[in-house]
Amino acid sequence: MNNINGGVCAAKGFKAYGLRAGIKAGKTNKDMALVYSEVPATVAGTFTLNKVQAAPVKWDKYLVENFEKAQAIIINSGVANACTGQIGIDNTEKTAQFVADEIGIKKYNVLVASTGVIGAQLPMDAIEKGIKDLVPKVTHSEDAAQLAAEAIMTTDTISKQTAVEFTVDNKTSVIGGMCKGSGMIHPNMGTMLGFITTDVLISKDLLQEALLEVVNKTFNMVSVDGDTSTNDSVLVLANGLTGNAIINEKNDDYYSFLEALNKVCLFFAQNIAADGEGATKLFEVNVVNAKSYEDAKLLSKSIACSSLTKAALFGMDANWGRILCAMGYSGADFDPEKVDITIESEFGKINLVENGMASDYSEDEATKVLSSKKVIGWADCKQGNEKATAWGCDLTYDYVKINGDYRS
Amino acid sequence: MNNINGGVCAAKGFKAYGLRAGIKAGKTNKDMALVYSEVPATVAGTFTLNKVQAAPVKWDKYLVENFEKAQAIIINSGVANACTGQIGIDNTEKTAQFVADEIGIKKYNVLVASTGVIGAQLPMDAIEKGIKDLVPKVTHSEDAAQLAAEAIMTTDTISKQTAVEFTVDNKTSVIGGMCKGSGMIHPNMGTMLGFITTDVLISKDLLQEALLEVVNKTFNMVSVDGDTSTNDSVLVLANGLTGNAIINEKNDDYYSFLEALNKVCLFFAQNIAADGEGATKLFEVNVVNAKSYEDAKLLSKSIACSSLTKAALFGMDANWGRILCAMGYSGADFDPEKVDITIESEFGKINLVENGMASDYSEDEATKVLSSKKVIGWADCKQGNEKATAWGCDLTYDYVKINGDYRS
Repeated sequence: MNNINGGVCAAKGFKAYGLRAGIKAGKTNKDMALVYSEVPATVAGTFTLNKVQAAPVKWDKYLVENFEKAQAIIINSGVANACTGQIGIDNTEKTAQFVADEIGIKKYNVLVASTGVIGAQLPMDAIEKGIKDLVPKVTHSEDAAQLAAEAIMTTDTISKQTAVEFTVDNKTSVIGGMCKGSGMIHPNMGTMLGFITTDVLISKDLLQEALLEVVNKTFNMVSVDGDTSTNDSVLVLANGLTGNAIINEKNDDYYSFLEALNKVCLFFAQNIAADGEGATKLFEVNVVNAKSYEDAKLLSKSIACSSLTKAALFGMDANWGRILCAMGYSGADFDPEKVDITIESEFGKINLVENGMASDYSEDEATKVLSSKKVIGWADCKQGNEKATAWGCDLTYDYVKINGDYRS
Repeated sequence: MNNINGGVCAAKGFKAYGLRAGIKAGKTNKDMALVYSEVPATVAGTFTLNKVQAAPVKWDKYLVENFEKAQAIIINSGVANACTGQIGIDNTEKTAQFVADEIGIKKYNVLVASTGVIGAQLPMDAIEKGIKDLVPKVTHSEDAAQLAAEAIMTTDTISKQTAVEFTVDNKTSVIGGMCKGSGMIHPNMGTMLGFITTDVLISKDLLQEALLEVVNKTFNMVSVDGDTSTNDSVLVLANGLTGNAIINEKNDDYYSFLEALNKVCLFFAQNIAADGEGATKLFEVNVVNAKSYEDAKLLSKSIACSSLTKAALFGMDANWGRILCAMGYSGADFDPEKVDITIESEFGKINLVENGMASDYSEDEATKVLSSKKVIGWADCKQGNEKATAWGCDLTYDYVKINGDYRS
């Protein structure tokens, strides 16, 4: 499996574009993107479990549950279209209708995604104009994918796209995609906005199953701030242009596809955490030898979410008591007095805790390890064989700054 | 019921003192306190549910579960004596023994509490010397109570003590106490360190029951950072010197006692939140008209704990979408489209949300309301009759600063 360029446009038959429609404040930021498949594509999706769901989430859920295929995804940043009542729902449907009319497809083949401020209504004039500008410009190119990836950003500091090439039915296939996410990141079964495109031919059931399995171990293991968004969605379009025999059972081709999908989602999960609002460090937390996978998951997420651990990471302070404390309140079943804790980065690897107590380490060496932009933590429970990995980031002055006045 | 001075020494027969024994870094900070009852007192306690429990928590739980009475509480700040293995357990018992020997009581009548850095061992020489200095100095006075309240502080910026006078069996009774707590504050059935003294005569069972009931609605509704400490404890000593007929059933006297205990714990809960690490504002969150008390509790705590809401509060930004979002991921059963949200302070009261959507309010007015040091939020679910209140604070640069390098 190789990484290739092209992001959401990398797979055969996918086009995209991104531009400024005038939704965001300021005059230069791009704020609308369109992804389009030359032929209708099998669709799968996962969505936020927040009780407050944005209008586009409701629309997309309806489409994913009731239709086999979709052909376009229209995305705006700047306004989340959440907590907007019936007007918001009408605006989502109108947005899909504009795209459908402009392209010449049905509105039920147009997925809609929004991200930005909660509570504001979409400026429909800007949306309509943006769609008219976008449709003639969509192209199958790296540049177009890049513009689309930039147009979906809010507080993200870098655009996030990736693509991999792999073999299915002896034919070269591609999975590519783009995502956004920086704040309000604590997915619960859904995730932040992720858009994945592939030219593999796969049944809808298996596409959905593969997506859920991968999302649970990637996007759902990321936390920036413990806040589960109202707009989290991951959508996959599979247009079949690889020309492979359809994947409709769990054969070798399915597992090749699953592996490639996992690689794409893993890239996004890590990059969302690394680009967490105000973050200076990616924090990867590996819990190993736990009693059950559920325990390993609870433990790793609890460590990655602990405000105190995150602030200590920012301060490069090897305050491991906070890690053990976060494990203790995670709800997982484990014996704290058996736990070993190790930190690792390109500057070295240091054991901080042995059997629940401080080991003999140098604070200076530990600070050096923590000075990296990517810190890996290991908690070895020594009580079983299960493991899980979560991704987080440090808690910084800039997180407070960004969120103290996000709207202005 | 009246507020009176004297804190942990306010009730008849209680003495205390606080001084510097040399546990904390620096040369001036007080770090040990002793609370003593002239006669053995009925004891009750609640403790952290964190799986990682400090050695003194284990000791106190054992005493509270197995002994009717206690007579002294020895407290140190600077070192939490958590994650310290058998040495830590031995050191706790030695600490109790030192106090017992010095006063001339049994070690099983001496409760021990520690707060500070996790993972370090207690400096037993300093502890022993501190106890020798403390025992002859304990006094029944306001000054002594103040010194004790100061000696148990860690990152707290103000000492926290209170006392109330009320009537039981036609006699004047007192409940007083002191507590500490600023970071790692997210109690779960236990709480931060709280020490409550009363001269009421009450059975052990009812004392424990009253404590649990009150703690669940006060201390357990506070969150500073979502981190549940390894050392949380609330201890109550009731020495009976009021001379009342013993309270051993739920009569009027019991409810008078419960009301007074609630007033004391409520004061502590509010003041811990207001003095949250780096906090500039107390945030009181009232959820009303929820379907069940459980729902009201989940909703109010979720709002008070949301990093995004807390950062918006710091920035005086009426970003109500974050409040509704936090309600949505709380796990509570409610209909977001019925919710009204209002904010209130001494600068006014403004309705931000009606039926889940923005109401017509002035952002400038809202910012003025949020500029207060105490902001009250109301979320009206309009779906039932239950209510709950949680207390939190804003998320600030100083929280990050304090916790980026707490240990140095």
